[in-house]
Amino acid sequence: MKTVNSKARITELLSYAGIQVDGNNPWDIKVHNEKFYTRVLTEGTLGAGESYMDKWWDCEQLDEFCSRVVKADLQDRIRSDRKLISEILLHKIFNRQSKSLSFANSQKHYDLGNDLFINMLDKRMVYSCGYWSDAHSLDEAQENKLELSCRKLYLKPGMKVLDIGCGWGSFAKYAAEKYSVNVTGITVSKDQTELGKKICSGLPVEIKLMDYRDINGRFDRIVSIGMFEHVGPENYITFMQVANNCLNEDGIFLLHTIGSNTSGTYNDPWFTKYIFPGSNLPSIKQIGKAIEGLFTLEDLHNFGADYDKTLMEWYSNFARNWNNIKDSYDERFFRMWKYYLLSCAGSFRGRKNQLWQIILSKKGVPGGYVSVR
Amino acid sequence: MKTVNSKARITELLSYAGIQVDGNNPWDIKVHNEKFYTRVLTEGTLGAGESYMDKWWDCEQLDEFCSRVVKADLQDRIRSDRKLISEILLHKIFNRQSKSLSFANSQKHYDLGNDLFINMLDKRMVYSCGYWSDAHSLDEAQENKLELSCRKLYLKPGMKVLDIGCGWGSFAKYAAEKYSVNVTGITVSKDQTELGKKICSGLPVEIKLMDYRDINGRFDRIVSIGMFEHVGPENYITFMQVANNCLNEDGIFLLHTIGSNTSGTYNDPWFTKYIFPGSNLPSIKQIGKAIEGLFTLEDLHNFGADYDKTLMEWYSNFARNWNNIKDSYDERFFRMWKYYLLSCAGSFRGRKNQLWQIILSKKGVPGGYVSVR
Repeated sequence: MKTVNSKARITELLSYAGIQVDGNNPWDIKVHNEKFYTRVLTEGTLGAGESYMDKWWDCEQLDEFCSRVVKADLQDRIRSDRKLISEILLHKIFNRQSKSLSFANSQKHYDLGNDLFINMLDKRMVYSCGYWSDAHSLDEAQENKLELSCRKLYLKPGMKVLDIGCGWGSFAKYAAEKYSVNVTGITVSKDQTELGKKICSGLPVEIKLMDYRDINGRFDRIVSIGMFEHVGPENYITFMQVANNCLNEDGIFLLHTIGSNTSGTYNDPWFTKYIFPGSNLPSIKQIGKAIEGLFTLEDLHNFGADYDKTLMEWYSNFARNWNNIKDSYDERFFRMWKYYLLSCAGSFRGRKNQLWQIILSKKGVPGGYVSVR
Repeated sequence: MKTVNSKARITELLSYAGIQVDGNNPWDIKVHNEKFYTRVLTEGTLGAGESYMDKWWDCEQLDEFCSRVVKADLQDRIRSDRKLISEILLHKIFNRQSKSLSFANSQKHYDLGNDLFINMLDKRMVYSCGYWSDAHSLDEAQENKLELSCRKLYLKPGMKVLDIGCGWGSFAKYAAEKYSVNVTGITVSKDQTELGKKICSGLPVEIKLMDYRDINGRFDRIVSIGMFEHVGPENYITFMQVANNCLNEDGIFLLHTIGSNTSGTYNDPWFTKYIFPGSNLPSIKQIGKAIEGLFTLEDLHNFGADYDKTLMEWYSNFARNWNNIKDSYDERFFRMWKYYLLSCAGSFRGRKNQLWQIILSKKGVPGGYVSVR
């Protein structure tokens, strides 16, 4: 494939999204290496992300660039072109199943170093989407999200709560302090376990380093915030069976997860390689299949647009505090992390990805579950 | 199969649900014909319903009887018995796919005569689940539901709204009067079309007798309240494609449907034969499959417990007003209709069936859909 053809194709494609190469809008891109076009055509999103890390191209507002690519729905536009280009682009740029990759554990991501997350997240260290209704800062948005989650769970003093994928214990601490419940949190990250124990010390909270499949015991409530994305479609049913086994008959389970409009088996190749190995965003069809015969769907709340704001705040903190942590990383890591946060923000802004808070009960809450917002 | 065995089996089965034959609780049953037991064992729910219509058995609180059968989860209890009985009962009493029946159109039900529905429903003639939050009467509950639906749709004056399965025009009238929108309602019932036109006269409302697959035009909003139950799993994707084609790019679609915790292909045999030919209650898996690639799931609200109250009010009206309409029907019809309303109330009370209001958008509402309760 000649470079000149690749450039023409990519340029044409981007024009559908109102993006120019070397244009003056903040979402336009500057290309520093002409091999960029061929790399994207042949390697798809992996090539786009890696060439960004390699400084082959830049963009003043990477988040808005990504949002426009998503909103313009380039995939459908290309299909109607019925050119050779469509075949290439569909399979390389947009087909997330185009490469088979070996997966590592999600542990890898969360053990990148607590310092990185301390300098990026809110004061409670909540590493999931905030709830921005009535919030004026990231701290408030995360506190709102924790409060909303507790209210949706109808927590009462003394209840036993299981937190699958507890992170640094932010939900556990909040629920134990404000709602006087006993929380068992599990995580596969050693760094999270250690810091989480410190954060929750003195409270009726236990943080354990373990896989969700090894959980024993029965709980009044289960919460899982931002962990289901790492479970993988092949384990969705197992995950739901474990949750079902651990939940008392009259219990409530709050599942908080990023969602996809379509059913895939793994995430974008660049994301899989650099950010979240083994991750996949579940669709409603996949969730519906996994809960069938196990749970009643009581409520579903989509506040995916709030992840745009959350990710922009994380990037702002990360960039502002880079000097605090840069000795542990390098410039390529900075560009990788920036690409991760801003391209995700764009995906949520373009509404490609969703954030679903789902309430599940085993046999239906007697008298009905009263939906909370 | 001997009568004595059938009786022992049914009696044992019912005891798991705390129900006695000839007991003194209002949910206990009186059996007037000993052939009842064998009929239920061999004909399942069809035999149960038909033998009730034939006066072979009675129950003071049929709704509570059904609720207990559902809550006791007899199916699972029997499985663990591992007796011959399980084989018979699983396939006869609980397997809804045990008989192949020829289906008529749902038109049949809604053309039973407007008088029947005038004497059963609220003053607006809303034939779907009310929203009982803060409501003290059926009239209020139905008005609440219409108001809630309008608010969820973010209606603005002048908008073009499509109502798929408009009944007697209750939503169309409410939305046109209170929100100044133009509504096109479609129904397959001639009776509904005629009365609906009268009810909505003088308003910017058009009521059409037509199948949803014949709809043309584009709309700002789509609403479908209590119609999806008649679409059938083989047409779920077609239904969603039609809705997608008819909705403007920035539109919102409110789907209000009874839901099931499991995926079936048709409804209970008795219901199919006597009440709703060709009906099926969709599961989340089936809905998820149907919307994939077409819609973004913005919100899901389950208020199935409110259908218990709604159905009990309908039965109360029906029984109280029976004298007004009894010349057009017979006593067997009365028992059939009573069985329909009260057994449904019990199914919702036992949380076997759900009522889902689902908000769908084509590409995600820009900036996010704000959930309304």
